[in-house]
Order: sequence, then C-alpha cells, then structure tokens
Amino acid sequence: MIPDTVFADLALVLDKRVTRSKSDLEQHGRSEAWHPDTPPDAVAYPKTTQEVSAIVKICHANDIPIIGWGTGTSLEGQTSAIHGGLIVDFTQMNKILQVNDSDMDAIVQPGVTREQLNIELRTSGLMFPVDPGANASLGGMAMTRASGTTAVKYGTMADNVIGLEVVLADGTVIKTGTRARKSSAGYDLTKLFVGSEGTLGLVTELTMRLHGQPEKILAGVCSFDDIDSAVNTVMLAIQMGIPMARIEFLDVSAVQAVNSYAGSEFPLKPHLFVECHGSDTGVESQIETLSELIDDFGGSPLEWASKPEDRNALWTMRHNAYYACLALKKGCVSVITDICVPISNLAEAVVETAEDIEKSFLDGPILGHVGDGNFHAVLLIEPDNAEDLAEAKRLADLMAKRALRFGGTVTGEHGIGIGKKHFMAQEHGDAAWDTMGALKTALDPKNIMNPGKLVR
Amino acid sequence: MIPDTVFADLALVLDKRVTRSKSDLEQHGRSEAWHPDTPPDAVAYPKTTQEVSAIVKICHANDIPIIGWGTGTSLEGQTSAIHGGLIVDFTQMNKILQVNDSDMDAIVQPGVTREQLNIELRTSGLMFPVDPGANASLGGMAMTRASGTTAVKYGTMADNVIGLEVVLADGTVIKTGTRARKSSAGYDLTKLFVGSEGTLGLVTELTMRLHGQPEKILAGVCSFDDIDSAVNTVMLAIQMGIPMARIEFLDVSAVQAVNSYAGSEFPLKPHLFVECHGSDTGVESQIETLSELIDDFGGSPLEWASKPEDRNALWTMRHNAYYACLALKKGCVSVITDICVPISNLAEAVVETAEDIEKSFLDGPILGHVGDGNFHAVLLIEPDNAEDLAEAKRLADLMAKRALRFGGTVTGEHGIGIGKKHFMAQEHGDAAWDTMGALKTALDPKNIMNPGKLVR
Ligand SMILES: Cc1cc2nc3c(=O)[nH]c(=O)nc-3n(C[C@H](O)[C@H](O)[C@H](O)COP(=O)(O)OP(=O)(O)OC[C@H]3O[C@@H](n4cnc5c(N)ncnc54)[C@H](O)[C@@H]3O)c2cc1C
Ligand SMILES: Cc1cc2nc3c(=O)[nH]c(=O)nc-3n(C[C@H](O)[C@H](O)[C@H](O)COP(=O)(O)OP(=O)(O)OC[C@H]3O[C@@H](n4cnc5c(N)ncnc54)[C@H](O)[C@@H]3O)c2cc1C
Repeated sequence: MIPDTVFADLALVLDKRVTRSKSDLEQHGRSEAWHPDTPPDAVAYPKTTQEVSAIVKICHANDIPIIGWGTGTSLEGQTSAIHGGLIVDFTQMNKILQVNDSDMDAIVQPGVTREQLNIELRTSGLMFPVDPGANASLGGMAMTRASGTTAVKYGTMADNVIGLEVVLADGTVIKTGTRARKSSAGYDLTKLFVGSEGTLGLVTELTMRLHGQPEKILAGVCSFDDIDSAVNTVMLAIQMGIPMARIEFLDVSAVQAVNSYAGSEFPLKPHLFVECHGSDTGVESQIETLSELIDDFGGSPLEWASKPEDRNALWTMRHNAYYACLALKKGCVSVITDICVPISNLAEAVVETAEDIEKSFLDGPILGHVGDGNFHAVLLIEPDNAEDLAEAKRLADLMAKRALRFGGTVTGEHGIGIGKKHFMAQEHGDAAWDTMGALKTALDPKNIMNPGKLVR
Repeated sequence: MIPDTVFADLALVLDKRVTRSKSDLEQHGRSEAWHPDTPPDAVAYPKTTQEVSAIVKICHANDIPIIGWGTGTSLEGQTSAIHGGLIVDFTQMNKILQVNDSDMDAIVQPGVTREQLNIELRTSGLMFPVDPGANASLGGMAMTRASGTTAVKYGTMADNVIGLEVVLADGTVIKTGTRARKSSAGYDLTKLFVGSEGTLGLVTELTMRLHGQPEKILAGVCSFDDIDSAVNTVMLAIQMGIPMARIEFLDVSAVQAVNSYAGSEFPLKPHLFVECHGSDTGVESQIETLSELIDDFGGSPLEWASKPEDRNALWTMRHNAYYACLALKKGCVSVITDICVPISNLAEAVVETAEDIEKSFLDGPILGHVGDGNFHAVLLIEPDNAEDLAEAKRLADLMAKRALRFGGTVTGEHGIGIGKKHFMAQEHGDAAWDTMGALKTALDPKNIMNPGKLVR
C-alpha cells in the first residue's frame, strides 16, 4: 500500500501525473500471457530523469516497490505488481533526443517505441532492426534483452544498446557506456543492466546502435513435408554462413492459425519465412545458395514477396502469429515457452517438442526464430483451468530440460519475470543464481526495484 | 606476505606446483609497460579447476591477495602484485577441451593462447579471429576485454566469449552463459566478468565463439600525404559499411620505427594497412570501393600482399610495431595510451594528438585500430626519469580528456589496471564508478581478488 501522504508527495513532484484511478490500475495490472492480474497501488507518468529520480527517492524512503512499464507486452509477468507498489509508466518519456548519422547511433528516452524510432529514421538511410513483433518500448526491450525476427543478422538488444542512463534504487543517476565502438574501462554496466527487468534500476535514456538500411530486401516463403526438413535447411544455412536477415519457422498448427486469422492460404505444411538484406548482388547470391538448400531438403520453391507492401503483409502476419494462435481457441490464454539451443541440436529439439505436444490434450502451435536456435510453443489453456495449466507447465518443463540438456537456455528472448524463475537454479546452478542475487542486493539492498522478479 | 604454513598448504594442494624462487617471482613482477616491478610473494601453477578452487579457499581464509596471470602482456600493470600475494599462473591449464564445428564454438582452459587455438583449428575451416598482436592467453584476453586489429569485423572479446567457468573469491565455482546464440535468462554474468581484470574471480574455462575461415583474404598497404587524409578515408569507409577485416593506421614516426626494426622500406608518410575477408566477389567489391576512396583522398594505390607469406610478414610487422617503437630510443620504456572515439571524431582526435606530441620533447609514434576509432600514442620515456614520466602523463591526460569530450573512452582495449584508474571517475562519474565498487564488494567482500586494480 502507498500511504496517502506518500501519494501526495509523489503528486507534488509529478505535477499530478500519478494516479490511483481504477482503470489505470487495472490496465497496468494485466499481463499478455496467462499470469493473473495484479494491479499496482498507483501509476506514475514522469516526463524527465529528474522526476524519476525524485519519485524513486520517495519510494526508497518509504519502502515502496517500483515497477517500470514500457508498453506492457512482456510475457513472463515482468510488470506484475506482485508486492503492490508504484508502476512507473514511461509513455510520456518518448523523445528521440539525438540521431548521429555519421556514427550510426541514437539517444532516446525509454518510452520511444521501435516503430517510432524507425519512422524518425526513414529518410536517414539508417534503421533500428531489433524487432520483437510487438511495438514495444526501447526501455522495455532493453530490460528483457529482447530480440525477435532479425536477431540472426543484427543481434539482440544486448548488441544494440551501447549506453544507458539509469536511476538507481536510492535515486542516484548514473550513465553507463560511451559512444565509442568499444571500451575496456571497467565492468560493463550497460550489459549488466540490459536484461535486468527493472530489478536494478530504472532506465531513463538509451544510446542505441543503428544500422544502414539495406540496398535490397527480398522476403519469401516456402513449405516442407516435415519439420525435420525445414529445420535442417535452417541449420545448414546458418552453418554455411548465409547472412539471412530473418528466418522463421512455423509448424502446421501455426500455419493454420495464421491462415484463419489473416485469411492467407498457405498449404498446411511446416513453413519457413525468410528475408535477405544486402546489395543487389549480395542478396542474389544469398538466395541462390538458400534455394539450392531448400531444394535439397525437398522444400517448395521460395515464393517471393518482392513489393514492400507484400513484404509488410508477410511480416505483419508473422508478428500477429501470437494472437492468431490465441484465436485458435476462443477465450484461451497462453503459457508461452521460449527455449534456445545450439544450432546443431535444433532439429532434434523441435521434433521432440512437437512429439510431446502431439501426445498432449493441449494445442500448442510451434514457431520461432530458428536462425538463432530459438523457438516457442504457444501452449493454449483455458483461464483458471488448473488441469490445463498443470499440463502446460509439464510440457514447458520438458522443453526447458531439453534446452538445458543441449547446452541451451530456457529463455532466448522473453526473460524470467515470475514465469520462469523456477528454472533459474536449473539453468545456472544455485551458486551462479546466488551470484545474481548478491549483485541485486548490492545495488538494491532494500529490494524495492521490481521485487520478486528474476532473482531468488 | 604468505606465512610458511599457508605456503605449505598451497604446496600440498598443488603437489608442489607453487614456488617462491627468485627468478619466478621476478619474472611475474615485470610489466610490459613503464610500471615499476612488483614481484608477488609466490607463484602457483594449477592444472585443474579443483586446484584453483582449493588454493582460492586457502587464500580467502588467510586474506592473501590473488592475481591471475595469463602471459603477462597486459599494459596497465594489471598483473602487478602491488599488495603482494599469490600469482596464479595459468600456463599449465592450456587444454582445448572441445571444438564444436557445427555450432562454431570451442571450450578451452584459460591458459590456451590465441595462436594455439588457431593452430588447432587450422584444418577445421574455422578460426578464432580476436588478435591483440601479442600471443596472449584467452583467459587474460577475456579479462582485459582485449581486441586488436580484427575487432572492426569480428568484434572484441566481449562479443566472442559466450560462457565462462569462474572460481569466486571464496572458492565457489560457477558457470556462466550457455552455448545457445542468445539468452534472456537473468543478469549477463559472462559480460560482467569479461573485462573485470581478475578482480571478481579467476576464470578456469571459457566458451569461445568461432568464425568461418574466409574463402579469400587480401591484404594491402597505402600511404597518404597527411594524417587527415588517411583517417578520413577510414571514417568514410566505415560509414559506407565496407566490411573490412583490418584497417590500421601508422603515422610517420611509427612507419620509421617499423622500417628500422623490420628492414622494410615504406615511404615516410602516414600509412594504412588493410585486410579484406570474404568470398572472391565480395573481397573484390570491397577493394574496388576502398580503392576509389583512397584515390579520392590522394592516397597511393594499394600495394597488395596476396601471398600468405607476404601477408603474414605484413601483420608480423604490425604486431611488432610496439617493440619497434620502443627500439627507436635505446633503453626506453613506454606510457601507452589507448583512446577510442566515435568514428566521426576520429580525424580530429588523431590530428590534435599528433600536434600535442609534435610540440612535446617526447617521441610518441601514433598507431591504431582506426576502424574502431581506437588509437595509441606510444610515449617513449627513460625509465626512472621523473620529467619524462610527468610529460608523458600530461600528454596521456590531454588524450583522455579529448576522448571524453568526444563521447569516447580512455581505453578501447588495454583496460584499467593501475595505470588508468585515475581516469575512471572522469569517464564514468563518481556514482557509476562507485556502482562498480559496490559490485566488487558484493562478490569479493575481503578484497583479495587482484586488489587495487580497476575499482577505487
Ligand atoms: C505478440 C507478441 C509478440 C512478441 N514477440 C517477441 C519476440 O519476437 N521477441 C522478443 O524478444 N519478445 C517478444 N515479445 C515480448 C515483448 O514484446 C518483449 O518482452 C518486449 O521487450 C517488452 O517491451 P515492453 O516495452 O512492452 O516492456 P514491458 O513489458 O512494459 O516491461 C518489460 C520489463 O522491463 C521493465 N521496464 C520497462 N521499462 C523500463 C524502464 N524504462 N526502466 C526499467 N525497467 C523497465 C518492466 O518492469 C518489465 O520488467 C512479444 C510479445 C507479444 C505480445
Ligand atoms: C606488443 C603488444 C601488443 C599488444 N596489442 C594489443 C592489442 O592490439 N589489443 C589489445 O587488446 N591488447 C593488446 N596488448 C595488451 C595485451 O596483449 C592484452 O591486454 C592481453 O589481453 C593480455 O593477455 P595476457 O594473457 O597476457 O594477460 P595477463 O597480462 O597475464 O593478464 C591480464 C589480466 O587478466 C588477469 N588474468 C589473467 N588470466 C586470468 C584468469 N584465468 N582468471 C582471472 N584473471 C586472469 C590478470 O590478473 C590481469 O588482470 C598488447 C600487448 C603487447 C605487449
């Protein structure tokens, strides 16, 4: 609970941009996945770093939990106010502060979304490629170490955030990183905060790496007779070093979901959605090699979406695939898995997972960023159905164990939040997870920054 | 000091592979740069993680400083035993444990050197590209977040170390990272340890990312009338996205040093040494664009070293450039600077630095990995000459301030050790440097891991 006097202090600092209105609390208590609603005690809308620092100081003095909020699309209950407290919504800190064309970087506030940044960059010849489907905030994406369809070529948020401004748990403001391309000046604080899910501090500014818009983009689709052939094509393409910009897998059930959600007519077979970026000749040579591989594994010839609008339609379909899966079963919610394995184990991991789901009474379309070895089963459950939830957790557990057996990770991009905490000791071992706990305690001894998430 | 009883305990654990012999202590007290000799109290040669853990436990119980040692080539006094203690020399932990061809990674012990790994990989079609010139150990390179000539294409140790085994200050062994291409499973401990200079724990195993050997390699050399033209060529090449594998700058004084050390006959002008990696057509198109740029800036046509032996000779020359510089002035030592600035400020930074050195009574050849915006002035001083040292520090200070003014870093690749600690608060601000201190205290409350380095 937030005492009235503390609420009044916050309101003073924020010029009334803090609220306890029911609709605001409810909206900030929802999760995109199956996690139960947990409304916070209040929601703040700061506009400046100074305001963030001031409200953190107030919460610090009064032991009030603080939870950052970008667009609320994270999938593991990362924004749930499980211990109550204040949600700091960054939608009003959404300015692009600097674009440095010649150094290919930009400085932004955390509420800027990836689409907003790309619209701003449109005429600059530059782009920000990291793309988790959802039009998430760059602050939120940094905090979950997000990636998505393009990471196979351009890396994840870990590779594309080069500096931060952070408000620590006691309200102190620090800057991390530089605009140089590399540095050996001490511990890499930027990389420590990226992926920390708001448990170490609130991000109030980010320096992002940008990339040149490719001269040529070509996207296409092909289908295979079985999962094995589709995934083996990807494995070989990666091992041969074909620098694809996107390479996505959808199983039959995911294709079915997309067809009925988007009105497309893809044959009911496992599919790959591909995109290549480069110079005219570069893209041509990528496609040539890739087409040969697809043919070797019995895939259908690549069908090209060469016009920008067709390409956009294709990726919109892919981006909506999560909602398409949810629409397969009216009123359902999802337990979404996110394992990532070494490329050489990918086919085995996908096939075994598909077999498990086949045997289960639950539906679970499989799709993923297979160029990274990362894929999701979207396990569909009825809300408040204990049996469904137990079965989904059993399947998710099998997948997690599989990922770890192959030397991979239980989460390639969605993060831990509350939903995957029980896997942390399995993945890292107790001692390494305790090491994370020690770092958390060092930076947030009162445990007010997004308490209950990520660490023990 | 290490009490005799403790020494006896260490000897027991290590089956006598611990020594206090004068020559061993002296050898491990030396620094490659100007830092005064500081022999440790003893040197240990463990062979296994278990042994490392056991000796760390003994040191922890007895408050004995522990300093890791790879090949001792770091340049900022990182291995100096300034508070005495035990140097843990990893040369006997030099096994390549696994090479996973299909996932392009390898697991190695920390004493494996980069050349050793590349010899092992020769027939695999793979390579480990990070190249700091010196044949350093992979453990030491990880700990300084090293890079060198090839980082412009392949990244630094931060990009190429994907997992670690670490013995913490109390002897606990943890594993960090996975073999998957990405993960969002909590704080990125790997990236926290990379660059930590042995102040947070000892590394006993590393998982390294490997790269495909390029189909074609071409290296060449060209000269320019002035520094400005040479560096502007590089700036533009980077901004145009030409994917060069190496692009190195040498000023007239560095060229002179190389000529007299290696017997080459490069004209006494600022030079660029370049290397391109790729497919046949890829390399050709890189070279075409690059040659046009060089021509635009009045550079001499690229002279190609197309045979492997000529290429090796060229890079050996570059790798020995540091020793060539030292040889310019008999008996001298160096204060070596290492600033890294955003690419758009590179020409200004190099030219201003050259002007400062021109006006000084010290010699200071300038050379660097300019594709990253990183360059060194090797400031030559007489050992124990206070006036020389003061002047070198004045010049180094000017460079550091310049780097920070441009939004860059005081050290692109050499690290902090004791030599650059006084710049840390300037670069990061007191609060961010204190944050690093808090992390150090959390993981090493007794301050026994390489005490006195990097943090306050
Ligand atoms: C349809 C759909 C598809 C998706 N596909 C992908 C995908 O392909 N790849 C992928 O990686 N993810 C994907 N996601 C998950 C989600 O988009 C990402 O996790 C994204 O990074 C969340 O960003 P956000 O702005 O919504 O953050 P939020 O959900 O608002 O917050 C995420 C975390 O960051 C914290 N936080 C937010 N802002 C700040 C700040 N300024 N300072 C400190 N902490 C802060 C929050 O407290 C929370 O812990 C998908 C989600 C949906 C709904
Ligand atoms: C001629 C010359 C050229 C150079 N050129 C470059 C260059 O281009 N780029 C570049 O980045 N550097 C360069 N350097 C610097 C040097 O090579 C690097 O700093 C290298 O990373 C040091 O590796 P090392 O094995 O010698 O480590 P050491 O010097 O032995 O140790 C480095 C640090 O790591 C710690 N350490 C070592 N092993 C371990 C371990 N297993 N666990 C924990 N801590 C450990 C040490 O305590 C120390 O703090 C150059 C040096 C020389 C002499």
